Amino acid sequence: MTAETARPLARYSAFQRRGDFIFLSGVIAVDPTAGLIIRGFDDLPKGAGRTIGQTGEFPVDMKDGPILAQSRFRLDRIRATMEKAGCLMANVFKLVQYFRDLDHSPRYNTVRRRVFPDTPPVSTVVEASAMMPSRDILIEVEATTWLPVRP
Amino acid sequence: MTAETARPLARYSAFQRRGDFIFLSGVIAVDPTAGLIIRGFDDLPKGAGRTIGQTGEFPVDMKDGPILAQSRFRLDRIRATMEKAGCLMANVFKLVQYFRDLDHSPRYNTVRRRVFPDTPPVSTVVEASAMMPSRDILIEVEATTWLPVRP
Amino acid sequence: MTAETARPLARYSAFQRRGDFIFLSGVIAVDPTAGLIIRGFDDLPKGAGRTIGQTGEFPVDMKDGPILAQSRFRLDRIRATMEKAGCLMANVFKLVQYFRDLDHSPRYNTVRRRVFPDTPPVSTVVEASAMMPSRDILIEVEATTWLPVRP
Amino acid sequence: MTAETARPLARYSAFQRRGDFIFLSGVIAVDPTAGLIIRGFDDLPKGAGRTIGQTGEFPVDMKDGPILAQSRFRLDRIRATMEKAGCLMANVFKLVQYFRDLDHSPRYNTVRRRVFPDTPPVSTVVEASAMMPSRDILIEVEATTWLPVRP
Amino acid sequence: MTAETARPLARYSAFQRRGDFIFLSGVIAVDPTAGLIIRGFDDLPKGAGRTIGQTGEFPVDMKDGPILAQSRFRLDRIRATMEKAGCLMANVFKLVQYFRDLDHSPRYNTVRRRVFPDTPPVSTVVEASAMMPSRDILIEVEATTWLPVRP
Amino acid sequence: MTAETARPLARYSAFQRRGDFIFLSGVIAVDPTAGLIIRGFDDLPKGAGRTIGQTGEFPVDMKDGPILAQSRFRLDRIRATMEKAGCLMANVFKLVQYFRDLDHSPRYNTVRRRVFPDTPPVSTVVEASAMMPSRDILIEVEATTWLPVRP
Amino acid sequence: MTAETARPLARYSAFQRRGDFIFLSGVIAVDPTAGLIIRGFDDLPKGAGRTIGQTGEFPVDMKDGPILAQSRFRLDRIRATMEKAGCLMANVFKLVQYFRDLDHSPRYNTVRRRVFPDTPPVSTVVEASAMMPSRDILIEVEATTWLPVRP
Amino acid sequence: MTAETARPLARYSAFQRRGDFIFLSGVIAVDPTAGLIIRGFDDLPKGAGRTIGQTGEFPVDMKDGPILAQSRFRLDRIRATMEKAGCLMANVFKLVQYFRDLDHSPRYNTVRRRVFPDTPPVSTVVEASAMMPSRDILIEVEATTWLPVRP
Amino acid sequence: MTAETARPLARYSAFQRRGDFIFLSGVIAVDPTAGLIIRGFDDLPKGAGRTIGQTGEFPVDMKDGPILAQSRFRLDRIRATMEKAGCLMANVFKLVQYFRDLDHSPRYNTVRRRVFPDTPPVSTVVEASAMMPSRDILIEVEATTWLPVRP
Amino acid sequence: MTAETARPLARYSAFQRRGDFIFLSGVIAVDPTAGLIIRGFDDLPKGAGRTIGQTGEFPVDMKDGPILAQSRFRLDRIRATMEKAGCLMANVFKLVQYFRDLDHSPRYNTVRRRVFPDTPPVSTVVEASAMMPSRDILIEVEATTWLPVRP
Amino acid sequence: MTAETARPLARYSAFQRRGDFIFLSGVIAVDPTAGLIIRGFDDLPKGAGRTIGQTGEFPVDMKDGPILAQSRFRLDRIRATMEKAGCLMANVFKLVQYFRDLDHSPRYNTVRRRVFPDTPPVSTVVEASAMMPSRDILIEVEATTWLPVRP
Amino acid sequence: MTAETARPLARYSAFQRRGDFIFLSGVIAVDPTAGLIIRGFDDLPKGAGRTIGQTGEFPVDMKDGPILAQSRFRLDRIRATMEKAGCLMANVFKLVQYFRDLDHSPRYNTVRRRVFPDTPPVSTVVEASAMMPSRDILIEVEATTWLPVRP
Repeated sequence: MTAETARPLARYSAFQRRGDFIFLSGVIAVDPTAGLIIRGFDDLPKGAGRTIGQTGEFPVDMKDGPILAQSRFRLDRIRATMEKAGCLMANVFKLVQYFRDLDHSPRYNTVRRRVFPDTPPVSTVVEASAMMPSRDILIEVEATTWLPVRP
Repeated sequence: MTAETARPLARYSAFQRRGDFIFLSGVIAVDPTAGLIIRGFDDLPKGAGRTIGQTGEFPVDMKDGPILAQSRFRLDRIRATMEKAGCLMANVFKLVQYFRDLDHSPRYNTVRRRVFPDTPPVSTVVEASAMMPSRDILIEVEATTWLPVRP
Repeated sequence: MTAETARPLARYSAFQRRGDFIFLSGVIAVDPTAGLIIRGFDDLPKGAGRTIGQTGEFPVDMKDGPILAQSRFRLDRIRATMEKAGCLMANVFKLVQYFRDLDHSPRYNTVRRRVFPDTPPVSTVVEASAMMPSRDILIEVEATTWLPVRP
Repeated sequence: MTAETARPLARYSAFQRRGDFIFLSGVIAVDPTAGLIIRGFDDLPKGAGRTIGQTGEFPVDMKDGPILAQSRFRLDRIRATMEKAGCLMANVFKLVQYFRDLDHSPRYNTVRRRVFPDTPPVSTVVEASAMMPSRDILIEVEATTWLPVRP
Repeated sequence: MTAETARPLARYSAFQRRGDFIFLSGVIAVDPTAGLIIRGFDDLPKGAGRTIGQTGEFPVDMKDGPILAQSRFRLDRIRATMEKAGCLMANVFKLVQYFRDLDHSPRYNTVRRRVFPDTPPVSTVVEASAMMPSRDILIEVEATTWLPVRP
Repeated sequence: MTAETARPLARYSAFQRRGDFIFLSGVIAVDPTAGLIIRGFDDLPKGAGRTIGQTGEFPVDMKDGPILAQSRFRLDRIRATMEKAGCLMANVFKLVQYFRDLDHSPRYNTVRRRVFPDTPPVSTVVEASAMMPSRDILIEVEATTWLPVRP
Repeated sequence: MTAETARPLARYSAFQRRGDFIFLSGVIAVDPTAGLIIRGFDDLPKGAGRTIGQTGEFPVDMKDGPILAQSRFRLDRIRATMEKAGCLMANVFKLVQYFRDLDHSPRYNTVRRRVFPDTPPVSTVVEASAMMPSRDILIEVEATTWLPVRP
Repeated sequence: MTAETARPLARYSAFQRRGDFIFLSGVIAVDPTAGLIIRGFDDLPKGAGRTIGQTGEFPVDMKDGPILAQSRFRLDRIRATMEKAGCLMANVFKLVQYFRDLDHSPRYNTVRRRVFPDTPPVSTVVEASAMMPSRDILIEVEATTWLPVRP
Repeated sequence: MTAETARPLARYSAFQRRGDFIFLSGVIAVDPTAGLIIRGFDDLPKGAGRTIGQTGEFPVDMKDGPILAQSRFRLDRIRATMEKAGCLMANVFKLVQYFRDLDHSPRYNTVRRRVFPDTPPVSTVVEASAMMPSRDILIEVEATTWLPVRP
Repeated sequence: MTAETARPLARYSAFQRRGDFIFLSGVIAVDPTAGLIIRGFDDLPKGAGRTIGQTGEFPVDMKDGPILAQSRFRLDRIRATMEKAGCLMANVFKLVQYFRDLDHSPRYNTVRRRVFPDTPPVSTVVEASAMMPSRDILIEVEATTWLPVRP
Repeated sequence: MTAETARPLARYSAFQRRGDFIFLSGVIAVDPTAGLIIRGFDDLPKGAGRTIGQTGEFPVDMKDGPILAQSRFRLDRIRATMEKAGCLMANVFKLVQYFRDLDHSPRYNTVRRRVFPDTPPVSTVVEASAMMPSRDILIEVEATTWLPVRP
Repeated sequence: MTAETARPLARYSAFQRRGDFIFLSGVIAVDPTAGLIIRGFDDLPKGAGRTIGQTGEFPVDMKDGPILAQSRFRLDRIRATMEKAGCLMANVFKLVQYFRDLDHSPRYNTVRRRVFPDTPPVSTVVEASAMMPSRDILIEVEATTWLPVRP
């Protein structure tokens, strides 16, 4: 499945522009078309796993797969939403990241590092006891973007 | 009791305008005059319960009452704060919503739906292990508003 | 140890200016030079403890010390970051505060009160189940600042 | 899948007539043909979800779906068993209802209300720590019916 | 407050006669008029506490009060329902008793012993993890009665 | 020890006939003469264990023994009570079965299958958090019987 | 078994006179001769149970028996120790009482009331997480006595 | 409400003189007249809260209020008992202090410091898992006094 | 480090003489000079470990070390306090001992045995859920001494 | 699915011969081809369930199915590995068996008994808190084989 | 009871010789004749307790007795098995030791030290969440022996 | 600190040769010279961290550091022991690996992969609830080696 569309899962907007800022809703690793939660490398586009740490060893991939795949899918969704809003990943200047278990954070970081190779955004990281819609969601990210309206 | 006034419960501001934005503090369902936490339909203005799902069946209302009443009261307080700040509910474009138990979220949604019938705000939803001032608080909402300063 | 420098602990920016706003990353009580977590009055500059409630009674200070010292150190780090960004503590207009245990909040408040003696910022307070990098972190604060670019 | 047949899942009778009474075994939301537990709106006949509260918002439906769908499916199975026993839903005069979590009871009530619009049965409601065959079962209902043998 | 009326708290019947049997809904210690849960001796009619073990010692009564008062109130409600159904306490021949904590059972027994001084009913006793509408309910009793219809 | 007598363990009746029905109290695996709880194969009449699954392997029998022995003993007690009431095991048409741990249910089923080889009773199965008089009781069964009064 | 002797269970003194005071070690319900913990009415001298609330109903006595029997036995041991020290129960003027579960306190009180019918001692009651030598000990009592040395 | 009277809450003495010593029962923050547990500043005499740390900020006072108010009320009750016994607070030379949560101890200390400004008593501090009569009691103090009998 | 001095850690007296009695505050294993908690053999004076059971096997000493070292250090502190009060260890006639885990008691006993080789004191032993100032404290001991004032 | 192949799931060898011994890696019930965990009778080759205790009663099979199917599948995988190593099941002389829950051991034993009808291997059985790759794995078995190298 | 015989408790071999090695099954402290678990000094041969640390103080022996007695009994069983296999304790060169609670390990070590006074075996020590057949088993030991077959 | 020496931490042998096999004791990440547990990259020789995944980002390294550093140190200790025994890492043919938390296993695997780049050993992996000497130990590995005695 792919993350190309970015329509919200419920009655809220995926993004809103206000002045020079574009605000995004918190994004989770749910495929908006199929309504399915990303649970591992198998839920990513073919070959994507290898680029983010899939080892091919079954038990290892079963342990690290959920957080790595969600990290990747979720960032893809943010990117898709941004494009729809007319801006780029590089316009993201702020991230609030909620983890269900902060021990997952090093895995997430290996994925995020490739997305923001240069100046990284400001960042807040906390552990939440749960996210919507179920405990299978390991991470939620709220991004804020800045792209001045051209005069 | 009513939610008309919106002065903060402690040493923080209820809202602050910066440029075209009005930022609100996180709002909980505490009556600012009486200093009492909203715990059910009985703590709402008379008749208000019926408009948000009160059934009149005692055990059902005792189960759903706390979250429904807090959802309603809290949104009323946000509205009151907004009026004081010179803007409207429709100016809210962003909500961060903290629940003590995400199983409450469908109840909250039935209330929120009426408040934002058209374009809904961007929205982040997470479960926090607790909010101030006690575990009776089931939901806290931080709203952000945009109302350009008229030139 | 001192809190003078404010470089981020990992690959994220300490602050980012966008338009008239300066956004800060969430700040925790970790000494950025030594890479050590603040755990009590002994980790503050000499004499600082007495100004924020240290009693000199060993068991009392061992109980209240961690939250009081972290509250102080963390606000010092925010101040240092602000100076680097060219603005003042008084420019902070919004705080999101995550506690590991909300029972710590009254101690934190005694420290914050001195930092914002006049108009306090808007404020959101929630309990998170954990913060980075370990359970010794009792509080994380995300500040937002406003300082119009001079024309 | 449908609930039309009502053969018991193990070595017990679905119902037994004794004198003027028909006694039913406790009924759970398991499809007797497929041997599958009902877990959400998707396991109901197409369109059925909308009649019992499905909203179309993914996270909301994922929260409320399991109890609503089980409530509906289980009542359908009771009805099917009754028909097999030669009587009607209106002949039910007694219900014992076991919930795994009583917070689910308001959702169940919205479904039951339509089934017994007139004189409702006598009713006992308790929370059991588990039902057969697994923790996915949220509710079990034991119905008793009265239909005098025609002389 | 008194237990005289016995109308059900929600949409179910307080009792139903079928043939020679009268079936009662499970009864809990909630005042049907005031919609309040019985929590101790103070919620009983004046003087009633002394007849069921109130000692006048504050901490002792605070410990034993809730279960003793609920036991008494609940049996009063059963009696009131029976009278409305045209029969007597002595017609009760079967009780199913759900406790939230079986350590309460000896206290309940001291109250029940006076109600059925002669031939006691058949009896089933189990511990349920909760009853409606809240954890303050310590006991629920489902009674069945037999009173042949006079020809 | 044997299960021959069936007098109740406390102030309640072992059975009550009402019309054509005989109602039994919930039965647990307690020897009514010795006042001892059945805890394993050793508490059954000699040789009985082998007929219900005793393997002679000490650790295996120590694991499965308690539920198998209680299942057998309890059914013996029901049979004894029935004989006293003038009816047979085959007259049982309804069983409510409370388990302390539903993982025990397959073991219980192997015993019950022999008791009702033909038309089995209607059956309700739930897990209760505890039964009287202690946590050693693994199962309680409430049986109902029908034996028309001969005219 | 009887409580007549009162020698300490380990290397500590049962009592020590200092000036006009006699101090006792904390006393638990262990038979000093047999080295057995009192667990119910059966461990008391024959007939003693009936004097402190034994009902003859097996499940009730199994619930209340341990605390009632320990309360009685322990007070008997204090009396025995006192006699050895040359004084009377009436000389006790202070009790510190540790319970493993304060819900047991009303039962203990019914026993203590008979021992101190007139002026009761000063009394401190707290719940300890455990007492020696095992969790079967429900209560420990430390008594202090005053009996002026006659000149 | 006030703490002026000091009669014991149950069948024990508030104090007993033996030789030159006056022994007090453990004291908790229960109003002996009203039989109510002190739960916050509102349960103290008007204005008393401000003298022991009440800030007027609702959430802060809700956090610190219970332990501060109980500390104050309980010391007032000890003083009242002492006066009845004919001695002064300064005669207290020994305190045993039981907390339900030792994190409360710094708050208690700020109150105690004013009561014993000069030579403080000997002191033992432990955490008990509970005190009578309920978990709302946060602290119990057992005081001992010395006042030689005048010849 | 050594235990020679015995000044209290907070605002309470280390001991108080009243008549012929010397009362001590509860003593824990904290070095009063360094303000450090004793955590193992390394925190004792050199060579002291070997006299109380240190084996030289790293994992064994890491398991038994904390309680053995605290037992020894704490008794040294009591002795130091006594000397300051002008009396001897042999004057101790009463001990109240609070353990965080009673499984530690046999280790403590091996140490105590050497301190009171002859007539042991009266003794009360309970488990407290915590002691001041942190969970590292495994044992607190309150001693009482008697040494008649010489005329 | 079948267990015919036995290639390891990650970077370790399925077996290694050293001298006359063949050592096997710990084996779990994961299909090496499909990378799926065995969860019940449905994951076994058709008909296999009936040979190891499948009853055809849905709830019973859902309870016992996971451990029975894993036991069978795992032994099949050991056999397949052995054949690849050139030896037979009868050459196994040692088993170390890790269970996630030892209550599963009697079910496992009924399967193992058929595999080693004659001289059984030496055997060690312990409960591990988890096995790789997830909590669905109920048992892991490490086998050792002896087959002298023919000269 | 004695540990002289060493037949396995279930369908597995007590030992198996393969080449020069003798492998033993994991051994627990169960008397193979009586089928009873060793629970304390009383279950050892008379006088044996004193040789492994029994103090004669009831509470101390009740705390340390279970692990000390199991350690001794289990080593006796290993010795008996070895003799049957024709070898000596000194031939043991490898031990895997599973504890239910590693805090027991120092006690076990005092017993083991006497059994292997010279060159000790290689040793692995882990904590298992449980051993067969019940939680009363505190330790299981798997020994391996080497005794070259004489040519 | 370095892992060069490999003497056992307690009374057991680091290795034992028997025939062609060398058996090692379970190895944990404790520095045998300093008696200190490895807790992170700082406890490894300088520069070693970078070779096994240290990122230089403080929070990431604090999360992954303990398991990565213990994995490396422990394998170094096995290598040192082997050299002492006269064999090489390549002679290891069997590993039993105990983790305190199997979520650590992917980190451990990245380290192990470099040690056994060719034919990996047979391998058993389980989660133990604890290892010696404290909960800081995250992994214990028992290795077995084969190196035929040269004739």
